[in-house]
Amino acid sequence: MARLYHAPLSPFCRKVRLALAEKRIEVQLIEERYWEASPDFLRRNPAAKVPVLQLDGRTMAESSAICEYLDETRADPPLMPKDPTQRLEVRRLVGWFDDKFHSEVTSKLLYERVNKKVTGQGYPDSGNVKAGSKAIKYHLDYMHWLLDHRRWLAGDVMTLADFAAAAHLSSLDYTSDVDWNRSAVVKDWYAKIKSRPAFRSILADQVPGFRPPPHYTDLDF
Amino acid sequence: MARLYHAPLSPFCRKVRLALAEKRIEVQLIEERYWEASPDFLRRNPAAKVPVLQLDGRTMAESSAICEYLDETRADPPLMPKDPTQRLEVRRLVGWFDDKFHSEVTSKLLYERVNKKVTGQGYPDSGNVKAGSKAIKYHLDYMHWLLDHRRWLAGDVMTLADFAAAAHLSSLDYTSDVDWNRSAVVKDWYAKIKSRPAFRSILADQVPGFRPPPHYTDLDF
Repeated sequence: MARLYHAPLSPFCRKVRLALAEKRIEVQLIEERYWEASPDFLRRNPAAKVPVLQLDGRTMAESSAICEYLDETRADPPLMPKDPTQRLEVRRLVGWFDDKFHSEVTSKLLYERVNKKVTGQGYPDSGNVKAGSKAIKYHLDYMHWLLDHRRWLAGDVMTLADFAAAAHLSSLDYTSDVDWNRSAVVKDWYAKIKSRPAFRSILADQVPGFRPPPHYTDLDF
Repeated sequence: MARLYHAPLSPFCRKVRLALAEKRIEVQLIEERYWEASPDFLRRNPAAKVPVLQLDGRTMAESSAICEYLDETRADPPLMPKDPTQRLEVRRLVGWFDDKFHSEVTSKLLYERVNKKVTGQGYPDSGNVKAGSKAIKYHLDYMHWLLDHRRWLAGDVMTLADFAAAAHLSSLDYTSDVDWNRSAVVKDWYAKIKSRPAFRSILADQVPGFRPPPHYTDLDF
Protein backbone atom coordinates (compact mmCIF):
# COMPACT_ATOMS: atom_id res chain seq x y z
CA MET A 1 0.00 0.00 0.00
CA ALA A 2 1.11 3.60 -0.60
CA ARG A 3 2.62 5.43 2.36
CA LEU A 4 2.50 9.12 3.08
CA TYR A 5 4.91 10.61 5.61
CA HIS A 6 3.08 13.70 6.79
CA ALA A 7 2.22 16.15 9.56
CA PRO A 8 -1.48 16.50 10.37
CA LEU A 9 -1.94 20.25 9.94
CA SER A 10 0.58 20.74 7.12
CA PRO A 11 -1.30 22.32 4.18
CA PHE A 12 1.19 20.79 1.75
CA CYS A 13 0.44 17.31 3.11
CA ARG A 14 -3.28 18.01 3.09
CA LYS A 15 -3.18 19.02 -0.57
CA VAL A 16 -1.56 15.67 -1.42
CA ARG A 17 -3.99 13.79 0.85
CA LEU A 18 -6.93 15.38 -0.98
CA ALA A 19 -5.45 14.49 -4.37
CA LEU A 20 -4.78 10.88 -3.26
CA ALA A 21 -8.30 10.49 -1.89
CA GLU A 22 -9.96 11.96 -4.99
CA LYS A 23 -7.96 9.52 -7.11
CA ARG A 24 -9.07 6.74 -4.74
CA ILE A 25 -5.51 5.73 -3.86
CA GLU A 26 -5.44 4.06 -0.45
CA VAL A 27 -2.60 5.34 1.63
CA GLN A 28 -1.10 4.58 5.01
CA LEU A 29 -0.49 7.83 6.89
CA ILE A 30 2.69 8.00 8.93
CA GLU A 31 3.26 11.03 11.13
CA GLU A 32 6.77 12.34 10.62
CA ARG A 33 8.59 14.55 13.10
CA TYR A 34 10.30 16.20 10.13
CA TRP A 35 11.88 18.95 12.25
CA GLU A 36 14.02 16.28 13.95
CA ALA A 37 15.44 15.40 10.52
CA SER A 38 16.26 11.79 11.34
CA PRO A 39 18.80 10.09 9.01
CA ASP A 40 16.04 7.77 7.76
CA PHE A 41 13.84 10.70 6.87
CA LEU A 42 16.67 12.63 5.21
CA ARG A 43 17.32 9.60 3.02
CA ARG A 44 13.69 9.76 1.91
CA ASN A 45 13.84 13.51 1.31
CA PRO A 46 17.10 15.46 1.68
CA ALA A 47 14.99 18.63 1.77
CA ALA A 48 13.76 17.43 5.21
CA LYS A 49 10.19 18.39 4.41
CA VAL A 50 6.85 16.63 4.40
CA PRO A 51 4.97 15.31 2.49
CA VAL A 52 6.95 12.33 1.25
CA LEU A 53 4.96 9.76 -0.70
CA GLN A 54 5.95 6.16 -1.38
CA LEU A 55 3.98 4.95 -4.39
CA ASP A 56 4.63 2.97 -7.57
CA GLY A 57 7.89 1.72 -6.06
CA ARG A 58 9.25 5.27 -5.71
CA THR A 59 9.81 7.82 -2.98
CA MET A 60 8.49 11.24 -3.95
CA ALA A 61 8.85 14.73 -2.51
CA GLU A 62 7.52 18.26 -3.17
CA SER A 63 3.75 18.49 -2.91
CA SER A 64 3.08 20.12 -6.28
CA ALA A 65 5.35 17.72 -8.14
CA ILE A 66 3.53 14.83 -6.44
CA CYS A 67 0.07 16.17 -7.31
CA GLU A 68 0.98 16.66 -10.97
CA TYR A 69 2.45 13.14 -11.03
CA LEU A 70 -0.76 11.70 -9.60
CA ASP A 71 -2.78 13.51 -12.23
CA GLU A 72 -0.49 12.42 -15.06
CA THR A 73 -0.52 8.74 -14.03
CA ARG A 74 -4.19 8.42 -12.93
CA ALA A 75 -6.60 10.07 -15.32
CA ASP A 76 -9.76 9.59 -13.26
CA PRO A 77 -10.98 11.99 -11.96
CA PRO A 78 -8.92 14.71 -13.65
CA LEU A 79 -7.58 17.36 -11.25
CA MET A 80 -6.21 19.59 -14.00
CA PRO A 81 -8.00 20.91 -17.11
CA LYS A 82 -6.61 19.97 -20.55
CA ASP A 83 -6.33 23.49 -22.00
CA PRO A 84 -2.87 25.10 -21.45
CA THR A 85 -4.38 28.49 -20.54
CA GLN A 86 -6.60 26.91 -17.92
CA ARG A 87 -3.68 24.86 -16.62
CA LEU A 88 -1.69 28.08 -16.32
CA GLU A 89 -4.47 29.51 -14.16
CA VAL A 90 -4.58 26.40 -11.94
CA ARG A 91 -0.82 26.54 -11.43
CA ARG A 92 -0.86 30.30 -10.85
CA LEU A 93 -3.35 29.80 -8.04
CA VAL A 94 -1.53 26.81 -6.54
CA GLY A 95 1.49 29.13 -6.45
CA TRP A 96 -0.64 31.88 -4.93
CA PHE A 97 -1.67 29.71 -2.00
CA ASP A 98 1.49 27.67 -1.49
CA ASP A 99 3.78 30.68 -1.76
CA LYS A 100 2.01 34.01 -1.11
CA PHE A 101 -0.81 32.83 1.16
CA HIS A 102 1.61 30.51 2.93
CA SER A 103 4.13 33.24 3.74
CA GLU A 104 1.59 35.97 4.52
CA VAL A 105 -1.00 33.92 6.40
CA THR A 106 -0.28 30.26 7.20
CA SER A 107 3.26 30.79 8.48
CA LYS A 108 2.12 33.79 10.54
CA LEU A 109 -0.91 32.17 12.19
CA LEU A 110 -0.69 28.37 12.17
CA TYR A 111 3.09 28.14 12.45
CA GLU A 112 3.22 30.72 15.23
CA ARG A 113 0.40 29.14 17.22
CA VAL A 114 0.84 25.42 16.61
CA ASN A 115 4.14 24.52 14.91
CA LYS A 116 6.27 26.58 17.30
CA LYS A 117 4.79 24.77 20.27
CA VAL A 118 4.85 21.30 18.70
CA THR A 119 8.47 21.68 17.61
CA GLY A 120 9.58 23.28 20.88
CA GLN A 121 10.41 26.70 19.46
CA GLY A 122 8.63 28.74 22.09
CA TYR A 123 5.76 31.20 22.02
CA PRO A 124 3.90 32.93 19.20
CA ASP A 125 5.25 36.29 18.04
CA SER A 126 2.27 38.61 18.45
CA GLY A 127 3.42 40.87 15.60
CA ASN A 128 3.33 37.95 13.21
CA VAL A 129 -0.08 36.80 14.44
CA LYS A 130 -1.45 40.31 13.96
CA ALA A 131 -0.01 40.55 10.44
CA GLY A 132 -1.45 37.13 9.55
CA SER A 133 -4.91 38.02 10.90
CA LYS A 134 -4.88 41.14 8.78
CA ALA A 135 -3.58 39.43 5.63
CA ILE A 136 -6.12 36.59 5.66
CA LYS A 137 -8.93 39.13 5.14
CA TYR A 138 -7.34 40.37 1.95
CA HIS A 139 -6.91 36.79 0.72
CA LEU A 140 -10.54 35.88 1.51
CA ASP A 141 -11.58 38.97 -0.44
CA TYR A 142 -9.48 37.85 -3.39
CA MET A 143 -11.09 34.40 -3.23
CA HIS A 144 -14.49 36.10 -3.08
CA TRP A 145 -13.63 38.06 -6.21
CA LEU A 146 -12.60 34.88 -8.03
CA LEU A 147 -15.56 32.79 -6.85
CA ASP A 148 -18.05 35.54 -7.60
CA HIS A 149 -17.79 34.69 -11.29
CA ARG A 150 -16.41 31.14 -11.22
CA ARG A 151 -17.81 27.88 -9.83
CA TRP A 152 -14.39 26.80 -8.61
CA LEU A 153 -11.27 28.86 -7.98
CA ALA A 154 -9.63 28.34 -11.36
CA GLY A 155 -12.80 28.01 -13.48
CA ASP A 156 -15.78 25.73 -14.01
CA VAL A 157 -14.24 22.55 -12.65
CA MET A 158 -12.62 21.54 -9.39
CA THR A 159 -8.82 21.44 -9.69
CA LEU A 160 -5.60 21.31 -7.69
CA ALA A 161 -6.06 25.05 -7.09
CA ASP A 162 -9.12 24.29 -4.94
CA PHE A 163 -7.17 21.63 -3.04
CA ALA A 164 -4.26 24.00 -2.39
CA ALA A 165 -6.62 26.67 -1.07
CA ALA A 166 -8.77 24.24 0.94
CA ALA A 167 -5.64 22.67 2.44
CA HIS A 168 -4.47 26.01 3.85
CA LEU A 169 -7.92 27.14 4.95
CA SER A 170 -8.78 23.85 6.62
CA SER A 171 -5.57 23.97 8.67
CA LEU A 172 -6.34 27.55 9.68
CA ASP A 173 -9.91 26.57 10.47
CA TYR A 174 -8.55 24.06 13.00
CA THR A 175 -7.18 27.03 14.96
CA SER A 176 -10.32 29.17 14.41
CA ASP A 177 -8.44 31.60 12.18
CA VAL A 178 -10.96 31.79 9.35
CA ASP A 179 -13.87 34.21 9.53
CA TRP A 180 -16.44 32.36 7.41
CA ASN A 181 -18.86 35.26 7.75
CA ARG A 182 -16.66 37.47 5.62
CA SER A 183 -17.90 36.04 2.30
CA ALA A 184 -20.90 33.84 1.57
CA VAL A 185 -19.46 32.64 -1.74
CA VAL A 186 -16.19 31.56 -0.09
CA LYS A 187 -18.15 29.78 2.63
CA ASP A 188 -20.29 28.01 0.01
CA TRP A 189 -17.19 26.95 -1.89
CA TYR A 190 -15.63 25.57 1.31
CA ALA A 191 -18.85 23.76 2.28
CA LYS A 192 -18.87 22.12 -1.16
CA ILE A 193 -15.29 20.89 -0.94
CA LYS A 194 -15.52 20.03 2.75
CA SER A 195 -18.43 17.65 2.12
CA ARG A 196 -16.45 15.53 -0.36
CA PRO A 197 -15.47 12.06 0.88
CA ALA A 198 -11.81 13.02 0.23
CA PHE A 199 -12.05 15.53 3.07
CA ARG A 200 -12.97 13.01 5.78
CA SER A 201 -9.46 12.08 6.84
CA ILE A 202 -8.56 15.77 7.18
CA LEU A 203 -11.55 16.46 9.41
CA ALA A 204 -10.49 13.55 11.63
CA ASP A 205 -7.02 15.04 12.33
CA GLN A 206 -6.16 15.68 15.95
CA VAL A 207 -3.15 17.57 17.26
CA PRO A 208 -2.50 16.94 20.97
CA GLY A 209 -2.83 20.17 22.96
CA PHE A 210 -4.96 21.86 20.32
CA ARG A 211 -8.67 21.18 20.14
CA PRO A 212 -10.45 22.33 16.96
CA PRO A 213 -13.63 24.42 17.30
CA PRO A 214 -16.93 22.47 17.04
CA HIS A 215 -17.62 23.83 13.54
CA TYR A 216 -14.33 22.34 12.25
CA THR A 217 -15.92 18.97 11.47
CA ASP A 218 -19.45 20.28 10.91
CA LEU A 219 -20.44 20.10 7.23
CA ASP A 220 -23.22 22.59 7.98
CA PHE A 221 -20.99 25.13 9.70
CA MET B 1 5.81 41.32 -29.37
CA ALA B 2 5.74 39.53 -26.03
CA ARG B 3 6.51 41.65 -22.97
CA LEU B 4 8.13 40.57 -19.74
CA TYR B 5 7.84 42.76 -16.66
CA HIS B 6 10.88 41.78 -14.65
CA ALA B 7 13.69 42.72 -12.27
CA PRO B 8 17.24 42.08 -13.52
CA LEU B 9 18.59 39.87 -10.74
CA SER B 10 15.32 38.10 -9.88
CA PRO B 11 15.94 34.34 -10.25
CA PHE B 12 12.26 33.79 -10.99
CA CYS B 13 12.43 36.25 -13.90
CA ARG B 14 15.69 34.75 -15.10
CA LYS B 15 14.16 31.27 -15.19
CA VAL B 16 11.36 32.58 -17.44
CA ARG B 17 13.84 34.56 -19.58
CA LEU B 18 15.87 31.38 -20.13
CA ALA B 19 12.75 29.41 -21.09
CA LEU B 20 11.59 32.17 -23.48
CA ALA B 21 15.02 32.37 -25.12
CA GLU B 22 15.35 28.59 -25.52
CA LYS B 23 11.92 28.57 -27.17
CA ARG B 24 13.09 31.46 -29.38
CA ILE B 25 10.27 33.77 -28.29
CA GLU B 26 11.33 37.39 -28.73
CA VAL B 27 10.40 39.45 -25.74
CA GLN B 28 10.56 43.09 -24.75
CA LEU B 29 11.99 43.38 -21.23
CA ILE B 30 10.43 46.02 -19.02
CA GLU B 31 11.97 46.67 -15.62
CA GLU B 32 9.26 46.76 -12.98
CA ARG B 33 9.68 48.42 -9.59
CA TYR B 34 7.39 45.72 -8.19
CA TRP B 35 7.97 46.75 -4.56
CA GLU B 36 6.19 50.04 -5.29
CA ALA B 37 3.10 48.01 -6.28
CA SER B 38 1.67 50.60 -8.68
CA PRO B 39 -2.05 50.21 -9.50
CA ASP B 40 -1.14 49.33 -13.11
CA PHE B 41 1.15 46.60 -11.95
CA LEU B 42 -1.34 45.22 -9.42
CA ARG B 43 -3.88 44.97 -12.22
CA ARG B 44 -1.41 42.81 -14.14
CA ASN B 45 -0.62 40.68 -11.11
CA PRO B 46 -2.48 41.14 -7.82
CA ALA B 47 0.30 39.12 -6.15
CA ALA B 48 2.57 42.15 -6.83
CA LYS B 49 5.41 39.93 -7.97
CA VAL B 50 7.59 39.66 -11.04
CA PRO B 51 7.79 38.06 -13.55
CA VAL B 52 4.63 38.99 -15.41
CA LEU B 53 4.50 37.90 -19.05
CA GLN B 54 2.22 39.25 -21.76
CA LEU B 55 2.01 36.66 -24.52
CA ASP B 56 -0.67 35.09 -26.72
CA GLY B 57 -3.01 37.97 -25.78
CA ARG B 58 -2.82 37.10 -22.08
CA THR B 59 -1.17 38.39 -18.95
CA MET B 60 0.52 35.63 -17.00
CA ALA B 61 2.02 35.37 -13.51
CA GLU B 62 3.91 32.81 -11.39
CA SER B 63 7.20 31.74 -12.93
CA SER B 64 6.64 27.98 -12.80
CA ALA B 65 3.12 28.24 -14.21
CA ILE B 66 4.53 30.37 -17.05
CA CYS B 67 7.36 27.94 -17.81
CA GLU B 68 5.02 24.96 -17.95
CA TYR B 69 2.67 26.96 -20.21
CA LEU B 70 5.54 27.79 -22.57
CA ASP B 71 6.49 24.13 -22.73
CA GLU B 72 2.91 22.98 -23.31
CA THR B 73 2.26 25.49 -26.10
CA ARG B 74 5.69 25.38 -27.84
CA ALA B 75 7.05 21.88 -28.27
CA ASP B 76 10.49 22.83 -29.63
CA PRO B 77 12.85 22.46 -27.87
CA PRO B 78 11.21 20.46 -25.05
CA LEU B 79 12.09 21.70 -21.55
CA MET B 80 10.36 18.82 -19.77
CA PRO B 81 10.76 15.06 -20.36
CA LYS B 82 7.68 13.05 -21.40
CA ASP B 83 7.84 10.36 -18.72
CA PRO B 84 5.80 11.18 -15.56
CA THR B 85 8.55 9.93 -13.21
CA GLN B 86 11.12 12.15 -14.90
CA ARG B 87 8.70 15.07 -14.87
CA LEU B 88 8.24 14.51 -11.14
CA GLU B 89 12.02 14.79 -10.70
CA VAL B 90 12.18 18.01 -12.75
CA ARG B 91 9.39 19.55 -10.70
CA ARG B 92 10.89 18.34 -7.43
CA LEU B 93 14.12 20.12 -8.28
CA VAL B 94 12.41 23.29 -9.49
CA GLY B 95 10.69 23.28 -6.09
CA TRP B 96 14.05 22.63 -4.40
CA PHE B 97 15.62 25.73 -5.91
CA ASP B 98 12.63 28.08 -5.96
CA ASP B 99 11.58 27.21 -2.42
CA LYS B 100 14.40 25.70 -0.33
CA PHE B 101 17.43 27.24 -2.05
CA HIS B 102 15.55 30.52 -2.34
CA SER B 103 14.74 30.76 1.35
CA GLU B 104 18.06 29.38 2.62
CA VAL B 105 20.44 31.08 0.18
CA THR B 106 19.07 33.62 -2.31
CA SER B 107 16.96 35.55 0.18
CA LYS B 108 19.84 35.57 2.68
CA LEU B 109 22.58 36.72 0.32
CA LEU B 110 21.20 38.48 -2.75
CA TYR B 111 18.17 40.02 -1.05
CA GLU B 112 20.21 41.20 1.93
CA ARG B 113 22.97 42.70 -0.21
CA VAL B 114 21.14 43.99 -3.28
CA ASN B 115 17.34 44.02 -2.91
CA LYS B 116 17.39 45.77 0.48
CA LYS B 117 19.46 48.60 -0.94
CA VAL B 118 17.55 48.87 -4.23
CA THR B 119 14.18 48.92 -2.47
CA GLY B 120 15.34 51.29 0.29
CA GLN B 121 15.08 48.81 3.15
CA GLY B 122 18.44 49.53 4.71
CA TYR B 123 21.53 47.46 5.36
CA PRO B 124 22.26 43.73 5.15
CA ASP B 125 21.65 41.68 8.28
CA SER B 126 25.03 40.04 8.91
CA GLY B 127 23.45 37.01 10.59
CA ASN B 128 21.44 36.30 7.46
CA VAL B 129 24.46 36.77 5.20
CA LYS B 130 26.46 34.37 7.33
CA ALA B 131 23.67 31.77 7.28
CA GLY B 132 23.34 32.11 3.49
CA SER B 133 27.09 31.74 2.93
CA LYS B 134 27.05 28.57 4.98
CA ALA B 135 23.93 27.13 3.32
CA ILE B 136 25.12 27.63 -0.25
CA LYS B 137 27.97 25.17 0.39
CA TYR B 138 25.54 22.44 1.32
CA HIS B 139 23.47 23.17 -1.78
CA LEU B 140 26.52 23.09 -4.07
CA ASP B 141 27.42 19.73 -2.53
CA TYR B 142 23.91 18.43 -3.24
CA MET B 143 24.22 19.61 -6.86
CA HIS B 144 27.62 17.90 -7.03
CA TRP B 145 26.03 14.68 -5.82
CA LEU B 146 23.29 14.91 -8.48
CA LEU B 147 25.65 15.90 -11.31
CA ASP B 148 28.17 13.25 -10.41
CA HIS B 149 25.92 10.64 -11.99
CA ARG B 150 23.70 12.70 -14.28
CA ARG B 151 24.48 14.91 -17.29
CA TRP B 152 21.93 17.52 -16.22
CA LEU B 153 20.33 18.10 -12.84
CA ALA B 154 17.20 16.02 -13.39
CA GLY B 155 18.67 13.40 -15.74
CA ASP B 156 20.12 13.04 -19.22
CA VAL B 157 18.51 16.08 -20.79
CA MET B 158 18.45 19.78 -19.98
CA THR B 159 15.17 20.78 -18.32
CA LEU B 160 13.45 23.53 -16.35
CA ALA B 161 15.29 22.20 -13.29
CA ASP B 162 18.58 23.37 -14.80
CA PHE B 163 17.07 26.77 -15.59
CA ALA B 164 15.75 27.16 -12.04
CA ALA B 165 19.16 26.32 -10.58
CA ALA B 166 21.10 28.42 -13.10
CA ALA B 167 18.78 31.36 -12.51
CA HIS B 168 19.55 31.40 -8.78
CA LEU B 169 23.27 30.72 -9.20
CA SER B 170 23.73 33.34 -11.92
CA SER B 171 22.12 36.00 -9.71
CA LEU B 172 24.36 34.99 -6.83
CA ASP B 173 27.37 34.96 -9.14
CA TYR B 174 26.67 38.62 -9.91
CA THR B 175 27.42 39.36 -6.24
CA SER B 176 30.42 36.95 -6.10
CA ASP B 177 28.57 34.59 -3.77
CA VAL B 178 29.33 31.33 -5.58
CA ASP B 179 32.57 29.48 -4.92
CA TRP B 180 33.06 27.73 -8.26
CA ASN B 181 36.13 25.94 -6.92
CA ARG B 182 34.00 23.86 -4.59
CA SER B 183 32.97 21.34 -7.27
CA ALA B 184 34.38 20.78 -10.74
CA VAL B 185 31.22 19.02 -11.94
CA VAL B 186 29.01 21.89 -10.81
CA LYS B 187 31.35 24.36 -12.53
CA ASP B 188 31.30 22.29 -15.74
CA TRP B 189 27.50 22.17 -15.63
CA TYR B 190 27.32 25.93 -15.18
CA ALA B 191 29.84 26.56 -17.97
CA LYS B 192 27.69 24.42 -20.28
CA ILE B 193 24.47 26.28 -19.53
CA LYS B 194 26.18 29.68 -19.38
CA SER B 195 27.49 29.29 -22.92
CA ARG B 196 24.01 28.82 -24.40
CA PRO B 197 22.71 31.73 -26.51
CA ALA B 198 19.70 31.90 -24.12
CA PHE B 199 22.06 33.07 -21.37
CA ARG B 200 23.32 36.19 -23.19
CA SER B 201 20.65 38.59 -22.01
CA ILE B 202 21.25 37.50 -18.40
CA LEU B 203 24.99 38.10 -18.66
CA ALA B 204 24.28 41.62 -19.98
CA ASP B 205 22.23 42.63 -16.90
CA GLN B 206 23.49 45.63 -14.95
CA VAL B 207 22.23 46.81 -11.58
CA PRO B 208 23.28 50.40 -10.79
CA GLY B 209 25.53 50.50 -7.73
CA PHE B 210 26.53 46.86 -8.05
CA ARG B 211 29.29 45.85 -10.45
CA PRO B 212 29.58 42.11 -11.20
CA PRO B 213 33.00 40.45 -10.90
CA PRO B 214 34.97 40.06 -14.19
CA HIS B 215 34.26 36.31 -14.32
CA TYR B 216 30.48 36.96 -14.33
CA THR B 217 30.34 37.31 -18.13
CA ASP B 218 33.36 35.12 -18.85
CA LEU B 219 32.37 31.83 -20.48
CA ASP B 220 35.79 30.47 -19.53
CA PHE B 221 35.59 31.44 -15.86
